[in-house]
Amino acid sequence: MKAIVHVGLKPGVLDPQGKAVADTLGRLGFDEVGSARIGKVIELDLTGDLDAAAAEARVREMCETLLANTVIESYRIELQA
Amino acid sequence: MKAIVHVGLKPGVLDPQGKAVADTLGRLGFDEVGSARIGKVIELDLTGDLDAAAAEARVREMCETLLANTVIESYRIELQA
Repeated sequence: MKAIVHVGLKPGVLDPQGKAVADTLGRLGFDEVGSARIGKVIELDLTGDLDAAAAEARVREMCETLLANTVIESYRIELQA
Repeated sequence: MKAIVHVGLKPGVLDPQGKAVADTLGRLGFDEVGSARIGKVIELDLTGDLDAAAAEARVREMCETLLANTVIESYRIELQA
């Protein structure tokens, strides 16, 4: 089973990396770019016999422990068979 | 219009950040994690009157110029109205 974890900054949290990308795109002539925000995607290959509910619970624990900084980041888990 | 660009390492390219995450998860007791790969998601707010085809062409140009290192990374563009 595969778990895809999307991690992004919560709304309202400043995103300096996104701002740098948007500014640079503007300087390169891409004037249509208003703003940019940057997030992470973590693809996990899960081994063993986990059903979907158990896998999601485990991945949620991984997010809270390591994958996301829940003070400033939110995450979303997607499971693929 | 919003463009979401998914950037990830091409298959076969070593992903040290993903390996570090997988190793750390294993050390934390998440033994079901076989491997991990890490990618980026760039959300762009596009202003102006672009139709979908034009927007995709412009975003593709941004990817080739700045957003992806096409030697080692592939990208996928998703447009939202």
